[in-house]
Amino acid sequence: MARVVVLAGGTGGAKLAHGFDLALAAGRAGPGDAGGDDLTVIVNTGDDLELHGLHVSPDIDMVVYLLAGILDRERGWGLAGETWSAAAMLERYGAPTWFRLGDGDLATQVRRTERLHAGATLTAVTGELAAALGVRARILPMCDDPVRTRIRIDAGWLDFQEWFVRRRHADDAREVRLEGIARARPTREVMAAIGGAGLVVVGPSNPFVSIGPILAVPGLADALYAAPAPVVAVSPIVAGRAIKGPADRMLAATGIEVSAAGVAQYYAERYPRLLDGFVVDRSDAALAARIEALGPRVLVADTLMTGDGERARLASEIVAWGVSLARLA
Amino acid sequence: MARVVVLAGGTGGAKLAHGFDLALAAGRAGPGDAGGDDLTVIVNTGDDLELHGLHVSPDIDMVVYLLAGILDRERGWGLAGETWSAAAMLERYGAPTWFRLGDGDLATQVRRTERLHAGATLTAVTGELAAALGVRARILPMCDDPVRTRIRIDAGWLDFQEWFVRRRHADDAREVRLEGIARARPTREVMAAIGGAGLVVVGPSNPFVSIGPILAVPGLADALYAAPAPVVAVSPIVAGRAIKGPADRMLAATGIEVSAAGVAQYYAERYPRLLDGFVVDRSDAALAARIEALGPRVLVADTLMTGDGERARLASEIVAWGVSLARLA
Repeated sequence: MARVVVLAGGTGGAKLAHGFDLALAAGRAGPGDAGGDDLTVIVNTGDDLELHGLHVSPDIDMVVYLLAGILDRERGWGLAGETWSAAAMLERYGAPTWFRLGDGDLATQVRRTERLHAGATLTAVTGELAAALGVRARILPMCDDPVRTRIRIDAGWLDFQEWFVRRRHADDAREVRLEGIARARPTREVMAAIGGAGLVVVGPSNPFVSIGPILAVPGLADALYAAPAPVVAVSPIVAGRAIKGPADRMLAATGIEVSAAGVAQYYAERYPRLLDGFVVDRSDAALAARIEALGPRVLVADTLMTGDGERARLASEIVAWGVSLARLA
Repeated sequence: MARVVVLAGGTGGAKLAHGFDLALAAGRAGPGDAGGDDLTVIVNTGDDLELHGLHVSPDIDMVVYLLAGILDRERGWGLAGETWSAAAMLERYGAPTWFRLGDGDLATQVRRTERLHAGATLTAVTGELAAALGVRARILPMCDDPVRTRIRIDAGWLDFQEWFVRRRHADDAREVRLEGIARARPTREVMAAIGGAGLVVVGPSNPFVSIGPILAVPGLADALYAAPAPVVAVSPIVAGRAIKGPADRMLAATGIEVSAAGVAQYYAERYPRLLDGFVVDRSDAALAARIEALGPRVLVADTLMTGDGERARLASEIVAWGVSLARLA
């Protein structure tokens, strides 16, 4: 393998990070383990929220739970075998319960908040929680500063989770704003991971509200440009549709083609020559030439990541192909 | 009935408060309801604690849950039908779990803490939580100021719950200290309840660590002395033993006889002429004369309160007898 850094938001990025974690574990166990391999996942915190007085980090938790083997993979969030007693009580108390937190999940938020109030950084707390759950990979929030993604719909501005969870992203997003982003700084840990990476992978998460906030942390994209490692992205759009979530509708709203090529174009316009490689699903193989014309080389692969085997194989393919790509930037 | 104020700590006081609540409800439903009856429970907060960054009020919760009909009455604390997923996660995170909080119970602490951080008083929050759970009675913390009961054992000073729960009060308590008590003040609500009471009942809770902190709130005992209502206490010692907890051992340590008469003596020494009446169990009927020699009149009754019927009947007996007692103070 290599020293891999994955940028991840929710579902897609988390699954790919899981694939790298599985591939890495398999590599370590095997005879060809050259040492020095590891995985860092830099996670979006723009959709963090304050709920019941607690600091909730949905994307971090999804990645941590998945890599700890305790995510409810059918539901796609929260803990497997979860109970819901706390939510029932909170509802009786008149607290908002549209953002559902299971009992074990609530404990995560309680512990995180306690440690933050005690002065720990989100980076430190995330490391503690992940380590306690047996996660091998380094899970890093994109920054320790509060950044809050806001979405403008026709009726006005909403907090990200109000739009995404409460209203099930039914309203078209007219505009995305990242509150606090100007004052945010990448952490030492994020900068070190990027600087020391053998490969940087932009996960197949929503380019606007998952990857967008990470790349928008002032100095973070510059670090990616300056890094010696190739940077590759995996398309969240497959056969013209987002696997999950509103990425396809958001792409359409920008006037860009809703396809893997459209995603490549979006990144190329925002971050010219940043991507050295671009991974598309087999069903989008016909788009390869158009994407390569934008700059990045293209890998065609099975990107659906339905099971553990598929995730690990995709990760291994990406590494084998990606580490030797020439840097464009 | 009457306007009844009960001072309560844990189990015994909570059960008696429940009896008054049941008797009051029965009285209201009946044809003899004269109106103007109500119940206020003033609850010890000296054994509150900070846990997982949350404000936990064990005595308040016991009273509220019991009067809401959702206490786990077999266990004696927490919620009936509780689940324990959060505690399992908190344990994985390395958080202390010797003070057990079920999932629904954790939600109570989360909500309380959120509201306190938002600037609500403990009195206000307690009222909100109790009302949300359908409690008819007014449940008041003894004060809104932080008071923390500390216990000296041979090995040094402990927080109350460290001694009581973590070490299961196995060590003899050499001394009780109420941190913060000098700066505490009774609330408007507590003063109004005492001033407007038709009967004040000191519940059969531990005189040292449950009732003691309530009476020690500066100005609260004075208000009881000044109140027009008779003040009666129910003995927590029956047949020479505490029904629950360490009251008997603590009484023995003060050099006072471990009996209902000893409890009466303890109160008479600390708060002379405060008690106009004293309720003992049938098994202690022989102590009546000795107790009356200390000042208060004595009611002999079944005080074990095993079931709802027994609780309500005891409460009714106490009211019928107590309201017409002459004030000694």
